[in-house]
Amino acid sequence: MQRENSKIRSDLEIAQSATLLPITQVADKIGLTENDMELYGKYKGKIRFEALHALENRRDGRLILVTSMNPTPLGEGKSTVTIGLGDALNRLGHRSILALREPSLGPVMGIKGGAAGGGYAQVVPMEDINLHFTGDLHAITVANNVLASIIDNHIFQGNKLGIDPGRITWKRALDANDRALRNIVVGLGGKGNGVPREDHFEITAASEMMAIFTLAEDLVDLKEKIARTVVAYTYEKKPVTVGDLGAEGALTVLLKDAFQPNLVQTLENTPALVHGGPFANIAHGCNSLIATKTALKLADYVITEAGFGADLGAEKFFNIKSRIGKLTPTATVIVATIRALKFHGGVNREELYDENVDALREGFHNLLKHIETIKEFQVPFVVALNRFITDKEREILEFEKLCNEYDIPFAVTEVWEKGGAGGIQLAERLLAVIDQAEKDHSPTFYPLYPLDISLEEKMNVIAKKVYGAKGIELSPKAERQLRELEQNGWSKLPICMAKTQYSLSDDPNKLGRPKDFTIHIRQLKPSIGAGFIVAYTGDILTMPGLPKHPAALKINIDDSGKVTGLF
Amino acid sequence: MQRENSKIRSDLEIAQSATLLPITQVADKIGLTENDMELYGKYKGKIRFEALHALENRRDGRLILVTSMNPTPLGEGKSTVTIGLGDALNRLGHRSILALREPSLGPVMGIKGGAAGGGYAQVVPMEDINLHFTGDLHAITVANNVLASIIDNHIFQGNKLGIDPGRITWKRALDANDRALRNIVVGLGGKGNGVPREDHFEITAASEMMAIFTLAEDLVDLKEKIARTVVAYTYEKKPVTVGDLGAEGALTVLLKDAFQPNLVQTLENTPALVHGGPFANIAHGCNSLIATKTALKLADYVITEAGFGADLGAEKFFNIKSRIGKLTPTATVIVATIRALKFHGGVNREELYDENVDALREGFHNLLKHIETIKEFQVPFVVALNRFITDKEREILEFEKLCNEYDIPFAVTEVWEKGGAGGIQLAERLLAVIDQAEKDHSPTFYPLYPLDISLEEKMNVIAKKVYGAKGIELSPKAERQLRELEQNGWSKLPICMAKTQYSLSDDPNKLGRPKDFTIHIRQLKPSIGAGFIVAYTGDILTMPGLPKHPAALKINIDDSGKVTGLF
Repeated sequence: MQRENSKIRSDLEIAQSATLLPITQVADKIGLTENDMELYGKYKGKIRFEALHALENRRDGRLILVTSMNPTPLGEGKSTVTIGLGDALNRLGHRSILALREPSLGPVMGIKGGAAGGGYAQVVPMEDINLHFTGDLHAITVANNVLASIIDNHIFQGNKLGIDPGRITWKRALDANDRALRNIVVGLGGKGNGVPREDHFEITAASEMMAIFTLAEDLVDLKEKIARTVVAYTYEKKPVTVGDLGAEGALTVLLKDAFQPNLVQTLENTPALVHGGPFANIAHGCNSLIATKTALKLADYVITEAGFGADLGAEKFFNIKSRIGKLTPTATVIVATIRALKFHGGVNREELYDENVDALREGFHNLLKHIETIKEFQVPFVVALNRFITDKEREILEFEKLCNEYDIPFAVTEVWEKGGAGGIQLAERLLAVIDQAEKDHSPTFYPLYPLDISLEEKMNVIAKKVYGAKGIELSPKAERQLRELEQNGWSKLPICMAKTQYSLSDDPNKLGRPKDFTIHIRQLKPSIGAGFIVAYTGDILTMPGLPKHPAALKINIDDSGKVTGLF
Repeated sequence: MQRENSKIRSDLEIAQSATLLPITQVADKIGLTENDMELYGKYKGKIRFEALHALENRRDGRLILVTSMNPTPLGEGKSTVTIGLGDALNRLGHRSILALREPSLGPVMGIKGGAAGGGYAQVVPMEDINLHFTGDLHAITVANNVLASIIDNHIFQGNKLGIDPGRITWKRALDANDRALRNIVVGLGGKGNGVPREDHFEITAASEMMAIFTLAEDLVDLKEKIARTVVAYTYEKKPVTVGDLGAEGALTVLLKDAFQPNLVQTLENTPALVHGGPFANIAHGCNSLIATKTALKLADYVITEAGFGADLGAEKFFNIKSRIGKLTPTATVIVATIRALKFHGGVNREELYDENVDALREGFHNLLKHIETIKEFQVPFVVALNRFITDKEREILEFEKLCNEYDIPFAVTEVWEKGGAGGIQLAERLLAVIDQAEKDHSPTFYPLYPLDISLEEKMNVIAKKVYGAKGIELSPKAERQLRELEQNGWSKLPICMAKTQYSLSDDPNKLGRPKDFTIHIRQLKPSIGAGFIVAYTGDILTMPGLPKHPAALKINIDDSGKVTGLF
C-alpha cells in the first residue's frame, strides 16, 4: 500500500519470506492444545466448539477497538496499525490477541488492498487469508443461496405459505464484485423454469447471513437467529420466516464448521482470530462476536478493529455488536494519516504526497469530529498517526502541535516499516490512558441510544451525534417502510446504517467536517435474524462493481506455483 | 439408500460411529509422510504438489473402472460397490486406492443421496465430504464467476475486444439446485449497473471450469487450458478467450489449492482420493485426472467410477479422460441391481420390491447392451450384482442363470451390508478376469473413434455403438453451430454427450433396450478449455431444480452440534 518504488518489497513478498510458526505452537501460546484445534494446513486452524465451551468461566481480558477518521480511497492502514499494536503489546510482555475480519474476494479481485495488514504488520499466511482462507465466506454464500433456492422452489411447488413473489426480501449473494448481478430477472424460460420475478445479488459481506453469522453467540443462537429471519411477505403482507419454511436446520449445518473461529498469526507470531467479514459501509463491519468473545477469554488484551471511520464501524461496534454481545470496550485507538488529513483539507488525490500544512490543519477537523464521537460513547482513546514514508517532517510536527493544542493523547506509529517495534509508543500511550481512566474511575462505555425510542429517533441520534448532521429525511418509500416496521413490532431493534465511508455525510464528496447537512434515508430493511434495521442512505450499493483495471488481471502464478501480483 | 425400516441404521449413523484413522496414518499406508500433506482437520488432507512431483517416475498400477447399467431414479449403489471393491482388494492383501468424484451440494440439498457410498461401504468423514469438504467446488464456483464478472466488466468499461453481449457463452455457476437461475436477465437498472443481456446459471458440476479442473495434468496445464477457453464472440464472430482478457493467472491462483487431490478413507481405512465432481449426464462424469494419475503411482490397483451407466460415464471415461490422460484401463466392473433390471423390464417404481422374474429377464437386455459397449472398447469386465436386502432369492437365481446363459463373468456383492467382506467374491472374480486377459494377450483398451473424423461422424459413432441408435438428427440450431465449430477449426476435438441417464436413448421414458430410435442433438457447445464439444440431446438441463420436498428440509442439527437427516 505504501510502496512508492520498486526497491521496496511488496506485502506479498514480505509475507512469502516470513518464518511462520506451526499454528499448533501459536495455539500453545494461548493455552490451546492440538486437540482444541481443527487444522487447515500447517498455518491455519479453527478452534473447536469443545474448546470454546471449556473457556466459558474464565475472566475476560480488556477489549481495545481500533477505528479511524474518514479514510481516503487509498485506505489509511487501520488493519496494519491494529496488527502492529498487537505485536507491540506482545513485545511489551502483555498476552495479546487480535480479532479481525476476514477479507472478501470481491475487493481482492477488484481493487488492490486486502484486509490482512501491510508491510511488516501483516497476518499470515496472507495469500490464503486473502483468497479462500478456511472457506467461511463460501459457506455463508452457500447458506444464503440455498435459502434463496428454497424460497423460489416453495412458490414453484404450490406456494402453500402464500408468498408474494413481488415481496421476497431475501436476496441471492456472491463473494464477488459483480455489478451485472445488482438487478436481474430470474425464473424466465416459461413453465417448468420457475416463477419470473425481479431479484438482486448482494456481495456476501453485505448479506444478512453474514450479519447473523457474526452476531450469533453460539450454534444454538445461530440456528434461532436463522429461524426468525424474515425472507418475504405473504399476499396479506404477513412476514414469512426461515422457520416457516423449515430450513433453519440445513442452513445451520451448512455454517457449523465455518462458525468455529479461525486462528492465524502475525509476522511476529502474535495470535490472531480472523473470523467473519461484514463490510462497514453496507453492513455492521465487525469480526464475529464468537471470535471476540473467545479472544477475551484467551488474552489480557484483545485488539479488534471495526471497518472504515468511527462514523461507520465504531458506531455499529458500540451500538450493535457490543450491545448484543454485552461487551465493554476498554479503550479506542483512532487512526489518522497525514494523507487523509490533507485529503479532508481539500487536496486532490494526485497531490497527496506534496507537503501541505495548511490543508492538514483544515482536515484535522474531520479527525476532531471522530474524537467527539468516541467521547460520546464514554470510551478512553488515543489517536495513532500511521506514519508513511512519504510524510514530511513539517507535517508530522504540525500534527503533533495540533494534538497538543486540543489536548489529544496521541502516538506516531511506524508499524508498516518496523512491525511491532514501530507500535511501542502507541502501545505505551494506550496502556497509560487505560491506567489513568481506571484510576479516575471514569464513566465507562454506554450505547448512544436506548432501544425503546422510535426507529426514527434512533436514526436521528446517529445522524446528529455521530455524523454531525442536522437530522434525517426519509424518502416516501422509507416513510412507508417505517410504518410497516412499526406495525410488525420491530421498533425495538437497533439501526445499522449503510452510508458512504468517505464522508461524515451521505455524499462522498463532502469532505472534512461538513455542516448543515441532512442524511437522506432512501430505504429501510428489517434484518430480523441479525437483529437490526438497515437504513440505506445516499446512493450506497450492496453489490460493488469491478474497476476499469481489475486487480485480478495483475494476479499471476508461475510454473513453479508461486503467486505474484496479489498486492 | 437401502434403509427399509427404522431399525436399520442410516448411512450417517454408521459413518458417525465409525473409527477413523488419523489421515496421516492413512497417508503413511501409501508411503506419504505428514510433510507430503496439507491437513484439513484430522481426517481430511490434500496431497501437496511437491509430493506429486516426487512420484513422477514411478510405475503405474492397474486401473479398474466401475460403471453400470442405466440406473433407476433411486440409484444403484455404484459408488457403494466401488468402495466395497476397494476394501475387498485391500482385505485380499492388494495395495488399493479409490479415486472418486466429490459430491455436489445441489443434489445433497435436493434429493436424498450423496456420492460417498452407503451402508458399510462409505468414504468418511461422510458429513464433511457431502457438505463443503475441502472447498474445491467453492473454489471452482468462484473462479467461474470471477471470470463472468470480468467479461461483463470488460463490456461495461468500454469493450475494447468488441465482445457481442448477445454472444457470451460463458455462464455463471452455483453449486445448487436452483431452477430460478436457469434463465435470467442481468445488467438491469440503467446506466452504471452494467449492460442488460440474457444469462444463465449452471450447476458447478456441469460447468466448463469443472471440466477443465478435472482434465488438467498439472498447474501449468491448468493455466493453459483456462487461457485458451472461449468465453464469447466478437461482433465479427471471432472467438474471445480468457487469455484475451488476461484473466488466466488470477483464475489459476483461485484454483491452485483446490487442485491438490484430497485424501480420505473408507470405513475400513482404505485410502481414497476424492477429487473433482463433474456430473455424467451433463458433463464428462469422472473424478480429476490428477487424482487418478496420483493414485496410479501410489497403488497396485486403482478403483475408480464414472457416473451413471456405461452409455454416459464410461463412454466419456474412455473416449475423453483416458485419451487426454493417456490412461489404459485394465478392466471394468458393470454394476447391476435386481431393481434396475425389473425397472427396465417395465415395472413401476412402486412395485420394484415385488418379486417379478419375467420383468427381470426382460430388463436384462439393458445390461446386455452395456456389456456390448464395454466390449467395443476392448476392456475385460465383470458384472457385479449389488444385492439389496429386499431382493428375492428366485430373482438372484434367475440373474445368475442369465449370466451363465450369456457367458458373462459375474459376482454378487453385499458390500452395503457387509463392507469389504461382501465384495470378496467380486474382487476375486475381477482378479481372475484380469489374469486371464493378460495370459491371453487380449487386445487392450482402444477409444471408440479417432479424433480426425468429423464431429458429426463422432456423434454418430457414439449414438450407434454406445446407445444402439439408428443415428443422430441435428436441430437447425445445431446444424448452424456445427458449421461454426468447423469454421473455427475445432473439428478434431472429442464429443461430450449431455443425455438423460435413465435411458439408452435421449428420452428418459424409453427403458430397457430401445430400438429404432434417433438421438436428437439440440445444441452444440465448444468447451475449448476442457478440450471437447458438448452435444446436448433431448431436454437435458444443466441446472437442476429442487423437488417438492427438498432433502434440505429434513437436515437438522441438535443443541450439541450433532447433525441428523443427512441421508
